[in-house]
Amino acid sequence: MTTTVAALSVPEAGASFESTQLERRDLRPDDVRIDISYAGVCHSDIHQARDEWGQGVFPMTPGHEIIGTVAEVGDEVHDHAVGDTVGVGCFVDSCLECAACKDGEEMFCEKGVVQTYASQGYDGETTYGGYSRQIVVRDHFVVRIPDGVDLPGTTPLLCAGITTYNPLKRYGAGPGVKVGVIGMGGLGHVAVKIAAAMGAEVSVLSRTDAKAEDGQTFGAAHYYATGDDGVLDDLAGTFDLLLNTVGDGVDLDAFLGTLGRGGVMVNLGAPSDDLEVGAFSLLTQRRAVAGSMVGGLEQTQEMLDFCAEHHITATIELIDADQVDDYYDKVVDGDVRYRAVIDASTIS
Amino acid sequence: MTTTVAALSVPEAGASFESTQLERRDLRPDDVRIDISYAGVCHSDIHQARDEWGQGVFPMTPGHEIIGTVAEVGDEVHDHAVGDTVGVGCFVDSCLECAACKDGEEMFCEKGVVQTYASQGYDGETTYGGYSRQIVVRDHFVVRIPDGVDLPGTTPLLCAGITTYNPLKRYGAGPGVKVGVIGMGGLGHVAVKIAAAMGAEVSVLSRTDAKAEDGQTFGAAHYYATGDDGVLDDLAGTFDLLLNTVGDGVDLDAFLGTLGRGGVMVNLGAPSDDLEVGAFSLLTQRRAVAGSMVGGLEQTQEMLDFCAEHHITATIELIDADQVDDYYDKVVDGDVRYRAVIDASTIS
Repeated sequence: MTTTVAALSVPEAGASFESTQLERRDLRPDDVRIDISYAGVCHSDIHQARDEWGQGVFPMTPGHEIIGTVAEVGDEVHDHAVGDTVGVGCFVDSCLECAACKDGEEMFCEKGVVQTYASQGYDGETTYGGYSRQIVVRDHFVVRIPDGVDLPGTTPLLCAGITTYNPLKRYGAGPGVKVGVIGMGGLGHVAVKIAAAMGAEVSVLSRTDAKAEDGQTFGAAHYYATGDDGVLDDLAGTFDLLLNTVGDGVDLDAFLGTLGRGGVMVNLGAPSDDLEVGAFSLLTQRRAVAGSMVGGLEQTQEMLDFCAEHHITATIELIDADQVDDYYDKVVDGDVRYRAVIDASTIS
Repeated sequence: MTTTVAALSVPEAGASFESTQLERRDLRPDDVRIDISYAGVCHSDIHQARDEWGQGVFPMTPGHEIIGTVAEVGDEVHDHAVGDTVGVGCFVDSCLECAACKDGEEMFCEKGVVQTYASQGYDGETTYGGYSRQIVVRDHFVVRIPDGVDLPGTTPLLCAGITTYNPLKRYGAGPGVKVGVIGMGGLGHVAVKIAAAMGAEVSVLSRTDAKAEDGQTFGAAHYYATGDDGVLDDLAGTFDLLLNTVGDGVDLDAFLGTLGRGGVMVNLGAPSDDLEVGAFSLLTQRRAVAGSMVGGLEQTQEMLDFCAEHHITATIELIDADQVDDYYDKVVDGDVRYRAVIDASTIS
């Protein structure tokens, strides 16, 4: 027995979304059934739906920023109860036994993490994500949404929030630390808000000055239009930490020059092209280029609590199911301020 | 007044070495005059003498691995006395006032470090390095050579030793840490010895098995011929730390795959080509690619003391002045086991 739920899906790579029906599994003892309220549109959804990473499984229902209400729980579920407001992020299963899982880094599970969609569960079934009315998720992978927060604005934090919070914590963002955020889109604007709340001195590094006022509103101390001549040169040696939230087309060497001694650039985007870095850009100030990918469940909960305490939400546009195709184009064009969130009640 | 000393120099990029005469400055109050006994041949000497980095200043006397005997000291020199055995490494001056200098990272001096050769001193004069009979160096940039060590074998530690010791310390090489050393040449073989002495589990990653026996002798627990099919695939996720001592021609992505979660590859070589790295190689296990460049004076002294305590020297071939040209070719061909050191008494 399964439950049939309404969803949006792309039948093949690059196709438009269609209304469809998904089968959600019956509850296992450790499962939580969630009536989805909101699902965020992440740029990686677009990469996947258009099969730009070559890992697509179709038909595909994207969505890994999910907030909803617990509708039913399995017999062994103790942390979540019917009626609770909960969230689901980028993955829905891992072995929970390997060193990575035990260290709270389920995303690096040695058995292989099960992504929220377009992934193969340990039962062999393909996963389908949050652009739907309901989802069934193993309890460990469900987080509590703090009371009183704005739900649509909190939804993108399940990916954009943890993706930025994790490296900001790891690399010590806080008072006295100069953080540069490259790109102020869906990820970047959340990075600015979180880094500022951590007490870091935050600079926005955006191509134009179009978002300067927003940058200030989000908590940035400085805003630089990096497309202007000489701006990056003037920032030579400035930053302790750079979060690169832009995928393709970034001149990494130019930005690496803005890092001071021992500075780290963390790449959060997933460009299709190789990263190209001059060896001397790293050698000359013992700089590093790192990657980072979401964060574990315990830290996701910590991030949600931190954001609630600091009144941080993503700045979003709430959209209906029939607007998703248009918004995919708008996201690619950089025209969304700053994250689109689907009102799941409009999916039918 | 200056002192005229015999030296080897290349008159122009890529030329052969000629016997020549250099003028060494009269002592300033904080200067040390050193009669040079030995000078190591570092691969970067070759890059510079052939102007492969485009930073050459000619005529050039290379040499930044120097051991000799103090011949004279300035009035304000207290740490070194006539007759002491001392060493000089990759740089001979810095401001000593900036944050980097105060942190003991003189190589990253904000005013600009003065390299041991082919650099411009703060007095405007070009510097000339260790392939000569004598050098005059500011006292802060002179280190003590511990009693009883083998001098020719210790000479390369002034660059190859500190270049490897610094990242091994920074990234925590020690018991329980799996260190892979890519390339076992001049730098790499010293890295193996030091990492093993620190207690790390060291693997040599060399293209062929030609140096397998040496690797074991140097303290490596494992040796992998990475040119063989499937070897790197089998090592997926193995290492905590990789020291890449090879310049050009390394498939970084293939080696990054051998790093486990949070692993770091430190690039010590200085390739002329850009580093190319797949974004997912970094994202998927939050790996990092870092650069590192020698180390400060305090740490250089610490490294020399560590090596003396652990009986670590470079494995060298002692050569005469008239062999340097030939050995440049041999170093480039990978035919030196494992570092050439010039007997400075043969320079005339």
